[in-house]
Amino acid sequence: MLQNKITELFNIQYPIIQAPMAGGVTTKELVSAVSNNGALGMIGAGYMSPKNLRTLIKEVKQLTDRPFGVNLFVPNQFQVSDEKVMTAEQLLKPIRNELSIDENNSSELPDQKIAFQTYEEQLNIIIEEKIPICSFTFGVPSQEIIHELKQHGIIVVGTATTVKEAQEIENRGMDVIVAQGSEAGGHRGNFMNTTEEGLIGTMSLIPQVADAVNIPVIAAGGIMDGRGLMASVFLGAKAVQMGTAFLTCTESGAHPLHKQAILQASEDEMTLTRAFSGKTARGLNNSFMKHMKEHESSLPEFPVQNHLTNRIRKAAALQNQQEYMSLWSGQSPRLAKHQTVKELINRVMEGVI
Amino acid sequence: MLQNKITELFNIQYPIIQAPMAGGVTTKELVSAVSNNGALGMIGAGYMSPKNLRTLIKEVKQLTDRPFGVNLFVPNQFQVSDEKVMTAEQLLKPIRNELSIDENNSSELPDQKIAFQTYEEQLNIIIEEKIPICSFTFGVPSQEIIHELKQHGIIVVGTATTVKEAQEIENRGMDVIVAQGSEAGGHRGNFMNTTEEGLIGTMSLIPQVADAVNIPVIAAGGIMDGRGLMASVFLGAKAVQMGTAFLTCTESGAHPLHKQAILQASEDEMTLTRAFSGKTARGLNNSFMKHMKEHESSLPEFPVQNHLTNRIRKAAALQNQQEYMSLWSGQSPRLAKHQTVKELINRVMEGVI
Repeated sequence: MLQNKITELFNIQYPIIQAPMAGGVTTKELVSAVSNNGALGMIGAGYMSPKNLRTLIKEVKQLTDRPFGVNLFVPNQFQVSDEKVMTAEQLLKPIRNELSIDENNSSELPDQKIAFQTYEEQLNIIIEEKIPICSFTFGVPSQEIIHELKQHGIIVVGTATTVKEAQEIENRGMDVIVAQGSEAGGHRGNFMNTTEEGLIGTMSLIPQVADAVNIPVIAAGGIMDGRGLMASVFLGAKAVQMGTAFLTCTESGAHPLHKQAILQASEDEMTLTRAFSGKTARGLNNSFMKHMKEHESSLPEFPVQNHLTNRIRKAAALQNQQEYMSLWSGQSPRLAKHQTVKELINRVMEGVI
Repeated sequence: MLQNKITELFNIQYPIIQAPMAGGVTTKELVSAVSNNGALGMIGAGYMSPKNLRTLIKEVKQLTDRPFGVNLFVPNQFQVSDEKVMTAEQLLKPIRNELSIDENNSSELPDQKIAFQTYEEQLNIIIEEKIPICSFTFGVPSQEIIHELKQHGIIVVGTATTVKEAQEIENRGMDVIVAQGSEAGGHRGNFMNTTEEGLIGTMSLIPQVADAVNIPVIAAGGIMDGRGLMASVFLGAKAVQMGTAFLTCTESGAHPLHKQAILQASEDEMTLTRAFSGKTARGLNNSFMKHMKEHESSLPEFPVQNHLTNRIRKAAALQNQQEYMSLWSGQSPRLAKHQTVKELINRVMEGVI
């Protein structure tokens, strides 16, 4: 039952995908350990420069002969609204002061053209480095890009939060759908539906998506162990994608305070916010999220807001100030453990009949 | 695997509970058909007068010898704020006009004391009629009430949306927990957590609750078929409670337009609103919900707002105006079918291994 289209297609032993968490979580140690232990390691390249992506790919290749994948953010059209930037700057100022961040030393705002160039370069690296699996979030790539990747034998994976989005992924000719339930930590992957419309629980989302498409579905959102894997397979998924479960592993690059915060948290502390990046994401409620909450609708969109909070997140991490870090987590923190990737994968597979 | 503590305790053949939907859905035909077909029928008595409750119980008993249960709302402390009532009245006025409702003919606002009296009378009827299973939503009954029900051999069931609430139900000495995931239709059962905190997806909620308590857990939220039943059992539940799946059955008392609306809906159309009752509930987004959306926070609490919209909902039903009806539904409408209770239960059990 657990050897299926996905394990064959991805050439992996177990139907487990490590979610491509961005922001430094997917170190060479994490990605290679996942692949070496029979699951699929994924590099979360969303925020990576082409140069760093190529370096990381080469480093992972040194550590594993098994397949691993890369995830990219599909760049969105965005505008820089001076008014919204000013609003955000006003709100962020007291936090910058508290963290002793030099206001005069800020870098330039994101540029649409550069974002698209970076994406093109990331895609070229994936082709050049013969990465077997490329997944996308925040949208679907153009049909030209899908065609080119497939011509190079690369399996193309899309991320959906509703049936409509899953159908769009299939219609574009992509190979596999990650169906992201509302339980999932980090950024919501909705791209046709609003965030609210796209908050479908995994129990509802998986069978409805599986009924509506012919390509294989990977379940994501709230899955942490063999119980979640078995439940997902019964609901119609061929494999699971797990984020939070891998984030607290020894090999992950998440900040030690981030790991510890999840290990001590309960499920009712995970909240949605768009205050860190401009896109809605789920994480542990902290002072930053509370401070920004009532102003969320007046903040700039992604990636502008993400840029504005970048130095806050970096300074907070350096200063061990978890109240200003983005502590992304799904809704199952009580099932998280501090363990090695090998222990996690063994535990998941133990629970499987 | 499917014969377990719950099927033994409830003395039923299949681990399936029909959710106690209030507002006229749980007719004698529905409740008796569910019990006669090996699952547990439940009367949703939340809004019922003691007299009507007793009549319905007697009618169901005429139609089945099998066990069935009753669900009650635990009354909350509430205040009638003149300002909030005025705000609501202003917003409701154009809708009342459109439905030709006579403004001068309105009944008295809810009274705290009467609400508690009604609850006491409902409890007495359940004891007198020897109902074997009594479940509660919107809170936990007092320890005196739990003790009294148990002394009469009645199994006492609580509804939780978080681990904390589930632990409270166990600590109070109740027998069984219904864990309501965020996918569920109708009213949210949160009573210690805020609505937002209590929106945990079923995939996350069930294993975390099952790990935290020793009494059996019934999974609710998004479950429509054998896939959902098997998934729930793997996650740690002993049975499932299904609402939307029974609502569209032939025997249910839901308005024909309500059934039809669910059968034609997609999962991304289900929205949370507190505009109908003052408590947050999930249903198909319609004109009423859209009209009230931006004013939700200034509306009176439950049951005051529920009282204020009562005649609108009734007139809308009589006039077949689905845009002003409360079209409660969970997040899996694509899995709903127009079928008999017997067909539904057979289909669910067919999917079971």
